[in-house]
Amino acid sequence: MKIATLGPKGTFSHEAALKRNKNATIVFKDTVWDIFESVSVNEVDEGVVPLENSVSGTVGLTLDALMEFDLNIIAEIILPIKHNLVGYGKISEIKELYVHPSTYDQCEKFIRKFLPHIKTILTSSNAVSAKIISIQKDKNKGAIVPEKAIEIYNLKVIKKDVQDNKFNVTRFIVVSKKEAKRTSRDRTSIAIYPQVDKPGLLYNLLGEFAKRNINLTKIESRPSKGRLGDYIFFIDMQGSKEDEKIKEALSSIEESFFLKILGSYPREY
Amino acid sequence: MKIATLGPKGTFSHEAALKRNKNATIVFKDTVWDIFESVSVNEVDEGVVPLENSVSGTVGLTLDALMEFDLNIIAEIILPIKHNLVGYGKISEIKELYVHPSTYDQCEKFIRKFLPHIKTILTSSNAVSAKIISIQKDKNKGAIVPEKAIEIYNLKVIKKDVQDNKFNVTRFIVVSKKEAKRTSRDRTSIAIYPQVDKPGLLYNLLGEFAKRNINLTKIESRPSKGRLGDYIFFIDMQGSKEDEKIKEALSSIEESFFLKILGSYPREY
Repeated sequence: MKIATLGPKGTFSHEAALKRNKNATIVFKDTVWDIFESVSVNEVDEGVVPLENSVSGTVGLTLDALMEFDLNIIAEIILPIKHNLVGYGKISEIKELYVHPSTYDQCEKFIRKFLPHIKTILTSSNAVSAKIISIQKDKNKGAIVPEKAIEIYNLKVIKKDVQDNKFNVTRFIVVSKKEAKRTSRDRTSIAIYPQVDKPGLLYNLLGEFAKRNINLTKIESRPSKGRLGDYIFFIDMQGSKEDEKIKEALSSIEESFFLKILGSYPREY
Repeated sequence: MKIATLGPKGTFSHEAALKRNKNATIVFKDTVWDIFESVSVNEVDEGVVPLENSVSGTVGLTLDALMEFDLNIIAEIILPIKHNLVGYGKISEIKELYVHPSTYDQCEKFIRKFLPHIKTILTSSNAVSAKIISIQKDKNKGAIVPEKAIEIYNLKVIKKDVQDNKFNVTRFIVVSKKEAKRTSRDRTSIAIYPQVDKPGLLYNLLGEFAKRNINLTKIESRPSKGRLGDYIFFIDMQGSKEDEKIKEALSSIEESFFLKILGSYPREY
């Protein structure tokens, strides 16, 4: 069993992939796109990618990849996100902080309060932040990294749990060429691209779910890479695409609009 | 007249601020938060911040700041986004590419096609990417930067217009302590925080607009910094908050939900 996820080792994605299957061979990739490609060409069996964080929001590149590739979401993984300040000096000695942009968003209040005048250097992953600190061992440098990275890169913790919100979680999805088996507690994810703009459009779309008492758990609009105001809607709902009422709602929407069913899979919350 | 925006000079934000008022004194800040703070304490008259890009989507930190500060949106600025590859060598000599994360999203296909095996270094702004190239003049280094930065840092262009989408535009907003004067072609932005989750909730909310024939131009859900599934809805509509039908819809929503009116302002598209 091979799983592709975002590397290098020590990322939250690494942790999520191990939570999916602790015995899997993990193949590390640089981008979400590379992971989708790897699953598509059968290099790996599954891909694990971040979809949204409760603080910093949706990962746009994952939504784009879901539209471009023909893969199914077969599972979700909810991972609590705990960040840690690491370095080889005291907090007052830090002059440069290495931090991934999403991590910055999730720790902004902490950084503004405890490290107000330092220089922030953005990195391409939390593991890269960890690596820089572990190689340079400079007391004027700090980084904010996950627990997994502390273990792998053998780092010194200056302060634990520096994330601004205690309920910070990331929702990962597992993508595959296969489909998931139907369960009694499923979620279904879809994308709708209306390609028109008129008063009440989204209202009428949502009416198809409301009148069948289908509970939507998420709605997100994302620019369709064309002009502002031209959106694709990403919608999650409770239930399986095999459920009679969901089947009805989707076929009714499909009569007028472009619809892509991204997958039905067991829900974790 | 003083305007705060994202620095250093040469960013798209700099360009947007000059489009707002070419005679203004521009005060450069590091973060969206700093800009809101600067307007709040009367250090400047207005703040210009990016709200959404037609390719990479909404700037989450701007939505968060709109919720936290008591400022009004008084104008929007639509800026075409054109990216350029710069450096001192040929495209085939580039080994390291300096690029801002949003710029990367907007030029991903170009980078994957023309610079497939290079190392990507993320920077905190397009102007920082430009600065690095202008100081180091290394033929193995390249950057992707706006036109304004080419002019300011006197850079050599390797390839113009490398953005993946010709229709790439960013919508900036102008925030102030004042309010905008009502016009005949306004847009109104609001945020609704329902704090409950039940089937049909969003449908019923949108019904208040649909039944009054109010045209929504955008809807976006953003996690309320609590748990996944707990969302704040950001909605834009055509018209002013002084229009009778919008007044009615908003006061009906306010009876049951937390509502924040972010501003009415002349619309540019």
